[in-house]
Amino acid sequence: MVTDNASPAESGYVQPEIDVRALTEVLDGEYAGIRDLVRTNLTAYASVLEEAEELGIDAYRERVRDIVVEMAATGQTGMGFPGEFGGGGDIGASVAAFETLAFGDLSVLVKVGVQFGLFGGAILHLGTRRHHDAYLPDLITGRLMGCFAMTETGHGSNVQALGTVATYDAAAQEFVITTRGEGAGKDYIGNAARHAELAVVFAQLEVGGKGEGVHAFVVPVRDGGEVVPGVRIEDDGRKMGLNGVDNGRIRFDGVRVRREALLNRFADVTPDGVYESPIENPGRRFFTMLGTLVQGRVSVAGAGVGAAKVALTIATKYAVRRRQFAAAPSADEQLLLDYGLHQRRLLPLLARTYALHFAQDVVRTQLHDVFSGTEDDAHARRLLESRAAGTKALATWHATRAVQECREACGGAGYLSVNRFAALKADSDIFTTFEGDNHVLLQLVAKGLLTHYASEFEDLDQLGTVRHVASLAVETVLEKTSAHKLFERVRDLLPGGDEWDREAGLLDPEYQLAMVRFREEHMLAGVARRLKRGIDDRRDPGAVFSQVQDHVIALARAHVERLVLEAFTEKVRELPEGGNRTALGLLCDLFALSTIEADRAWFMEHGRLTVQRSKAISREVNDLCRKVRPLAVDLVDAWGIPSEMLRAPDLVG
Amino acid sequence: MVTDNASPAESGYVQPEIDVRALTEVLDGEYAGIRDLVRTNLTAYASVLEEAEELGIDAYRERVRDIVVEMAATGQTGMGFPGEFGGGGDIGASVAAFETLAFGDLSVLVKVGVQFGLFGGAILHLGTRRHHDAYLPDLITGRLMGCFAMTETGHGSNVQALGTVATYDAAAQEFVITTRGEGAGKDYIGNAARHAELAVVFAQLEVGGKGEGVHAFVVPVRDGGEVVPGVRIEDDGRKMGLNGVDNGRIRFDGVRVRREALLNRFADVTPDGVYESPIENPGRRFFTMLGTLVQGRVSVAGAGVGAAKVALTIATKYAVRRRQFAAAPSADEQLLLDYGLHQRRLLPLLARTYALHFAQDVVRTQLHDVFSGTEDDAHARRLLESRAAGTKALATWHATRAVQECREACGGAGYLSVNRFAALKADSDIFTTFEGDNHVLLQLVAKGLLTHYASEFEDLDQLGTVRHVASLAVETVLEKTSAHKLFERVRDLLPGGDEWDREAGLLDPEYQLAMVRFREEHMLAGVARRLKRGIDDRRDPGAVFSQVQDHVIALARAHVERLVLEAFTEKVRELPEGGNRTALGLLCDLFALSTIEADRAWFMEHGRLTVQRSKAISREVNDLCRKVRPLAVDLVDAWGIPSEMLRAPDLVG
Repeated sequence: MVTDNASPAESGYVQPEIDVRALTEVLDGEYAGIRDLVRTNLTAYASVLEEAEELGIDAYRERVRDIVVEMAATGQTGMGFPGEFGGGGDIGASVAAFETLAFGDLSVLVKVGVQFGLFGGAILHLGTRRHHDAYLPDLITGRLMGCFAMTETGHGSNVQALGTVATYDAAAQEFVITTRGEGAGKDYIGNAARHAELAVVFAQLEVGGKGEGVHAFVVPVRDGGEVVPGVRIEDDGRKMGLNGVDNGRIRFDGVRVRREALLNRFADVTPDGVYESPIENPGRRFFTMLGTLVQGRVSVAGAGVGAAKVALTIATKYAVRRRQFAAAPSADEQLLLDYGLHQRRLLPLLARTYALHFAQDVVRTQLHDVFSGTEDDAHARRLLESRAAGTKALATWHATRAVQECREACGGAGYLSVNRFAALKADSDIFTTFEGDNHVLLQLVAKGLLTHYASEFEDLDQLGTVRHVASLAVETVLEKTSAHKLFERVRDLLPGGDEWDREAGLLDPEYQLAMVRFREEHMLAGVARRLKRGIDDRRDPGAVFSQVQDHVIALARAHVERLVLEAFTEKVRELPEGGNRTALGLLCDLFALSTIEADRAWFMEHGRLTVQRSKAISREVNDLCRKVRPLAVDLVDAWGIPSEMLRAPDLVG
Repeated sequence: MVTDNASPAESGYVQPEIDVRALTEVLDGEYAGIRDLVRTNLTAYASVLEEAEELGIDAYRERVRDIVVEMAATGQTGMGFPGEFGGGGDIGASVAAFETLAFGDLSVLVKVGVQFGLFGGAILHLGTRRHHDAYLPDLITGRLMGCFAMTETGHGSNVQALGTVATYDAAAQEFVITTRGEGAGKDYIGNAARHAELAVVFAQLEVGGKGEGVHAFVVPVRDGGEVVPGVRIEDDGRKMGLNGVDNGRIRFDGVRVRREALLNRFADVTPDGVYESPIENPGRRFFTMLGTLVQGRVSVAGAGVGAAKVALTIATKYAVRRRQFAAAPSADEQLLLDYGLHQRRLLPLLARTYALHFAQDVVRTQLHDVFSGTEDDAHARRLLESRAAGTKALATWHATRAVQECREACGGAGYLSVNRFAALKADSDIFTTFEGDNHVLLQLVAKGLLTHYASEFEDLDQLGTVRHVASLAVETVLEKTSAHKLFERVRDLLPGGDEWDREAGLLDPEYQLAMVRFREEHMLAGVARRLKRGIDDRRDPGAVFSQVQDHVIALARAHVERLVLEAFTEKVRELPEGGNRTALGLLCDLFALSTIEADRAWFMEHGRLTVQRSKAISREVNDLCRKVRPLAVDLVDAWGIPSEMLRAPDLVG
């Protein structure tokens, strides 16, 4: 057995004790009630984890639909809708419920997301009273199923360029919805292949021969289970995962809907064919519409964190049970988690999962405040949208990575479907793509940083940014972050002066924060300068952007990681003294230092890490892993994942 | 459109032209014939890619079995067996066939591996004439199916500690095979759940009350399709992937086999119960037996490279077809592969795939030479085993990473099963675990380096190494690599003197090689010194090893990457002048520099990269990506993957 934790012991280190129940309370926060309801529901329907494998695809889809409707009856899935229509009137609770639901079968999760988040959210946020009255009550119970028909075969990321058209026929007072061309068919649409009766269809609105940009329409696609005339639906067929969700393709051949089918919160067409909108700029109008749907990204981010928790719980429990190789011929074989390498593989992922959990708390709260109207202005919305995009990207990549590492850490046993990783991996894979491709989302985040979330930002398409940065914002950015000024700001970031970062303790939160803040500021200035240089040289904006793109992504990552570390640090700071605070402090240090370590090349390249200090950080990460190791089981138990969700009888039992 | 390749154009850079057919000849090498046979067979059975989704698990298993038997009839799968039994007598060709088979359904591949590689290989290499005569002819045709029963629920990596026991009963002249305890059941055994009639069972041999270590026995498990008395077989059930292979668990309750069932090439038991072996040391005997099975690791390494090729071919073809976002409002949307970020995501993976292909050529050739007897001695065997282990680890991790990146690079379309990634990802996932867990394999590689492949190495279990290094070998290692000597050796590595690495051209192969050689040497000395210090301090060997484990893994990686770069560099050097050589030269530079870039923190920490040079390398990687971009389609086409294997009609069509 390996009991040789010499260095901590020598330095008088005392192992903190975790109060698991109290830690769960910290994690569940103000939403303990709804989270426990979801845990109860998950346990009641735990059999779906097996049914997912055993049932044929058709039966599995029906089973998932039934579960969603039954869960809806408990109030779990309607938290985000106003009380007057039968909802719970609590947006934060709605997201918390979704996060918790990610402990279970992810087809159930995604079906809930499609029905109540995408379809229901579009009706709620893009529609007006007439749509709410007509659809919300039945939609909230799941009696009325719908789909969200935005993505097309040809356009997933660049949805401003969709090919579906809605032409206003003033004589009939109807819109005519038409799929124009091969790539314009709606695709990958959840609920489309089987269950949706209605579709919220995003289409280019044409009124009187003039294009007014993309708008959303409520279009019946099925009546009594039969596809209606003019609509063609094709099944997307088997997918890597999420086969309990019926994704499909929809094409419209001149389908007519009445004028009131336009979801008219942000724009309307008068009966005689005059287009009206309170938002004049078409780009800003479109992004305002999209912005109301930000809850989807916040939800997927939380689901990513949830999926990572399931994987890490199984792998951690396995690693304190499974032995392999003995330290001496007569000794017992060693537990996997007593190997330094195994600690290195799992524990930084555990720390990052906690970090993302607390970062998710912040973005969920922002969402709640904006959409509950307690703090809603244009600037708050832009901050929220950026933060949601960035958190979604980092959380879902983290999920992919954590699931993979945990599967490998469970060896061949991890490959058996009964041990959960098969579904977890296949189902969560698409999280990095849907609700916005992660790379596109990070570019959005960077765009916000470069333009300081200025309102002009909304008027721009992606490459507009390049020109915009050149002509308008770059001076501001450079002024704020020019080489000279940057130096001053860095000094501001380092409370003990410019040399302080060479002497500060590695475990000083101020040091850790200063490091990630410096990285972000420096990268921001670097990207701005590169863009400006390219434009000044009169090079093709597309090529300039293409060449600077990896820096753009790095900047956005650095920004989001800074937000995540701030959220974690702040959470630790506000906890009462005690074992839980000490334990989370260790975990926060592990997250901060392993994050700096992962990018230590950059810090060295930019003069913020000496060689000696860089090596010291790696040693400290190893030390922290050894300190977290005895806490690992408590730390995963505190997530409160119902044991039925872990399955894996041979791994964790 | 992005046509702005300013820097290459300005410097008079001329785009090389690739002769795809000639490049395929380079890649296929001396095994073009067998590879083309496999391509033909893959195309003939292309429907299995769809059947894998459509058939139930039982029917899919039968289908895969049938295909394997039918392929066997073409001679494809028997290349590794001697001609006198109906084989092809060409071990290299056998591996080349397996590599090519990885373009298709991976259940077929793994079934072939189980039947002809593991089961057939054990009979061939551990058995003697009597076993060859009895089993090889029917085994090669697939009439006789068997399994390789080594792994147990409790022991996958530490197979010296298996729990199954074979006791010799001298009176009956029989061995009695018994599963002792819960964890001792054979598990994850391919062919066991359904098709195997025979099992090669690895068990602790006990003769006259004395344990003689693990040996292999031929044990009938089915007769006419029915499981025989004393044997219990359980289906492992559904797995993440490879569901066309029938994995199962086997338990033995005092099953009796005659004395001749012992595969007695390396040890035998006389009728009256005397144990005899030409290899005295039990550890060395065991590793000698295992060593004969090295072909499995070489084969899986090649399969990993093949799976990566399929993924990269689809993603590359998609990226030169798919457009998203326009550089200017009036312009066409840009092709994905014209984005700098997209190049960064795919092209270094493409370069690494080529690098691993040529590294695989080397290890396959070594295997062929050792097992054909042209170059077979103990040292050559140890080098081969180390190289096979290391290449397997790097190639299979590369496959996992490439498949994931390529799926994400194909967006939502990549998630549909019809587009190939679903099966590719699920099926290849276990490559990092089977035939040796990658982390365990890399420790084996490091062990070889630390002991200079000394013969004592074979006598040691994993932790024996720690004591061994302390008591015996560390002086040698340190002597060869001590701080002072190391400096001299580094000077040797840098042909232009010690400062040369700061001035040499980044594209000079000698510079690139010197960098990865220096890294390996330095890491080797570092690990040796750390181990020695721990042992000198009389600390618990297990803890010493645990703490140094991440350095051990880093060392092994560095070693294998050095071998891979040497293989690629050498291949480029020996090609005739022309477009293909120039193109592969670019790719080799991209591999070398992106490898150094990925570890640039280490090089900076160890004084081998200045900050300026580190940044210059990143810029050069970007430049190389832009130069490789126009060649990308030709480079993937040269792999000669039959178009039927790509499926993905919407992505590549």
